Amino acid sequence: MQIQIGLLGCGTVGAGVVSLVRRRADRVADMTGLRPVVKTILVRDTQKDRGVSFIDEQLTTSPEDILADDDIQIVVETIGGIEPAKTYILEALSRGKHVVTANKDLIALHGPEILQTAAANGVSVLFEAAVGGAIPLVGPLKENLTANEVTDLKGIINGTTNFILTQMTTRHIDFAEALQMAQDLGYAEADPSSDVDGLDAARKLVILASIAFHTEVHLSDVRVEGIRHITATDVRYADEAGYVIKLLAVGRDRDGELTLAVRPTLIPKNHPLAHVSDAYNALFVRGDAAGDLMFFGRGAGRMPTASAVVGDIIALVRNLKLGFVASSPNGSAGERKPVVEREDDVYKYYFRLTAADQPGVFAQVAHLFGEYRASMETVLQKRVEGDRAEIVIVTHDISSRLAREIAVHLSRSPQLAVEAVMPVEPVAE
Amino acid sequence: MQIQIGLLGCGTVGAGVVSLVRRRADRVADMTGLRPVVKTILVRDTQKDRGVSFIDEQLTTSPEDILADDDIQIVVETIGGIEPAKTYILEALSRGKHVVTANKDLIALHGPEILQTAAANGVSVLFEAAVGGAIPLVGPLKENLTANEVTDLKGIINGTTNFILTQMTTRHIDFAEALQMAQDLGYAEADPSSDVDGLDAARKLVILASIAFHTEVHLSDVRVEGIRHITATDVRYADEAGYVIKLLAVGRDRDGELTLAVRPTLIPKNHPLAHVSDAYNALFVRGDAAGDLMFFGRGAGRMPTASAVVGDIIALVRNLKLGFVASSPNGSAGERKPVVEREDDVYKYYFRLTAADQPGVFAQVAHLFGEYRASMETVLQKRVEGDRAEIVIVTHDISSRLAREIAVHLSRSPQLAVEAVMPVEPVAE
Repeated sequence: MQIQIGLLGCGTVGAGVVSLVRRRADRVADMTGLRPVVKTILVRDTQKDRGVSFIDEQLTTSPEDILADDDIQIVVETIGGIEPAKTYILEALSRGKHVVTANKDLIALHGPEILQTAAANGVSVLFEAAVGGAIPLVGPLKENLTANEVTDLKGIINGTTNFILTQMTTRHIDFAEALQMAQDLGYAEADPSSDVDGLDAARKLVILASIAFHTEVHLSDVRVEGIRHITATDVRYADEAGYVIKLLAVGRDRDGELTLAVRPTLIPKNHPLAHVSDAYNALFVRGDAAGDLMFFGRGAGRMPTASAVVGDIIALVRNLKLGFVASSPNGSAGERKPVVEREDDVYKYYFRLTAADQPGVFAQVAHLFGEYRASMETVLQKRVEGDRAEIVIVTHDISSRLAREIAVHLSRSPQLAVEAVMPVEPVAE
Repeated sequence: MQIQIGLLGCGTVGAGVVSLVRRRADRVADMTGLRPVVKTILVRDTQKDRGVSFIDEQLTTSPEDILADDDIQIVVETIGGIEPAKTYILEALSRGKHVVTANKDLIALHGPEILQTAAANGVSVLFEAAVGGAIPLVGPLKENLTANEVTDLKGIINGTTNFILTQMTTRHIDFAEALQMAQDLGYAEADPSSDVDGLDAARKLVILASIAFHTEVHLSDVRVEGIRHITATDVRYADEAGYVIKLLAVGRDRDGELTLAVRPTLIPKNHPLAHVSDAYNALFVRGDAAGDLMFFGRGAGRMPTASAVVGDIIALVRNLKLGFVASSPNGSAGERKPVVEREDDVYKYYFRLTAADQPGVFAQVAHLFGEYRASMETVLQKRVEGDRAEIVIVTHDISSRLAREIAVHLSRSPQLAVEAVMPVEPVAE
């Protein structure tokens, strides 16, 4: 027997899904007795070349050809963005179809509504591909790690910024040049803001945190800082002090209070996350029983993303075979853990200042750190163009509050400019 | 409503399971409406102190109190070893009970029989804890990565040997001393052979390979070499040449032909597996769609193992709630992919020889490598005690066959002894 699939959208990922479903159909049929088949594909232009030849699949420009087709049991959405994807998915769920989606924006912003619609209609929504590409993250957090109280998530979950930062580190180039490279290679979009300003990582953190911490999380709960202001100078100074700069997404649950942030962070070179390069992603998870875990792999790309989408399709086919229809509720609907700024958490902090290269300026800076009782681990001072000097300081552990207060105080001085302030990740235990 | 659990064995892991089930019962009840409760525990001695107080649980020395109790729907086995665990598990399955086990020996040796018995009785056997402790490996391979043709498994899956090799590397001590440390700390057993001779890793590889490669795998299919013969000298020479020595489990599927091995291997220091220290485990998986993935975490210990066992229990509770009873068949029953020695695969090879420190001996060795057209990347020669010299050679890529032939040829010389031959893992791409 066949399980008919309707595919909404046939861009990079969609075309990958079509070819991967064909490649694995025999095996799934051997395993389950059910053969997954893509029956109908919604596209904007039925004539466009997609690098896949459509022999058995019907191309259509009308969503009703999928949503109103009673033979189609699984709808796969790879359009991306909020609309019309959201309308189509809610419609598919209401008509009793299971949904697989790679759409992180939609799940991050409207996950609760979509999951509730699925539950109300006795069907499943699966979205492993929405976070971490090929890396199984949603599955392990939702299934294998449920015996844990997860206290920490920490990860590199945006491939574009990781590619840019890796290029800045290895080629000693500036942000603009690395961004251009990423755009030329297709790793960054013409308008790169969603990636480089940290929003994409924040959306993925929303999805991961809501599963790991069993609560509803909103995008506005995440403090977000991107990488536009990171310079080749920062990367070089970090390197000299023994660190690499990564855009880190961090989620913490301390006795039911959440802290969620995406921000550039200095990672010690001997930390496993320091070695996650280019378009790779990695997520650290700490559970009260499991201890520290790490998941690593390709976070994007046609076939890695298709791997996760088709993994979800096969899971649904197995469930259909076994007569198991609805996904298990997350237990988090409507529940909201409070989100707090944990200003007492201590980190080492990296400060980069520029100053007029005049006698006494450095003493003034040193004095101010001393006043705040913030001792320094590393100090670098270098003359840059003309009469400006650059001062880089890595402190010993200080609270986030103190780091903020010092930055405010420093920036009040007419002779100083605070160019960058970043926390330093502790050495892995 | 309660879901009653019978626990067979209450050692380190069993006691962890009891406390973790208690800790998570409320959450599972919130999520599913069903509360997991350990009802009865089979022990040899009901009076022994186990660091857990048993308030609601009934201790018994009679397996029938669990196996014949119709209220018990899930049986958890943490006895370990083959018998009586196997008899109890088969009996529980025949009586329609689901089984969760952490027993790698049993699953590696009798997995097919146990899975078939479960299928015949319409119940599930879950064994996430049998491989990699807290790290989700069985779940991702069985569920999330099913869209992939997995071609490579590569991992550090025995914590005891990894602890010993880490101590040898960081403390510059010999195998015997590091083993004693591991025994003193409870990481190695009084009779350490199962760990240090590679059998434990081989059993885990059997389990992983059978799932990843969709085939039946037997222990005799794995070529196994342990770490007893690794010396502090090997560790130091490897370090000087830029490598660390790890006991690596490797599984490959090349067009349906399998190669399975557990063996000490030199890992380049910039390879992610080089940084997996002490009792941590890590598994690399390469899939045709997903690309390279890595899973990392604690491979053993009371709570990490309990994390995996209780994760499986919660999965069963959810399934019971949803009326989903049997585990999905693996599709591999009775299927046997051929296992081959792939002697054409090329690696760099590490050779350590001892030789009489006489003129011409080194020239003789160099000449022999030249005859076999095996060029050398690194050569070290050092005098050791008395008139003996140690010669260490790391070759450029040569086939496994050639490495074997060279070793045989070298060992024919009365002036030479071949102390160690190990492959070198290529730099990660």
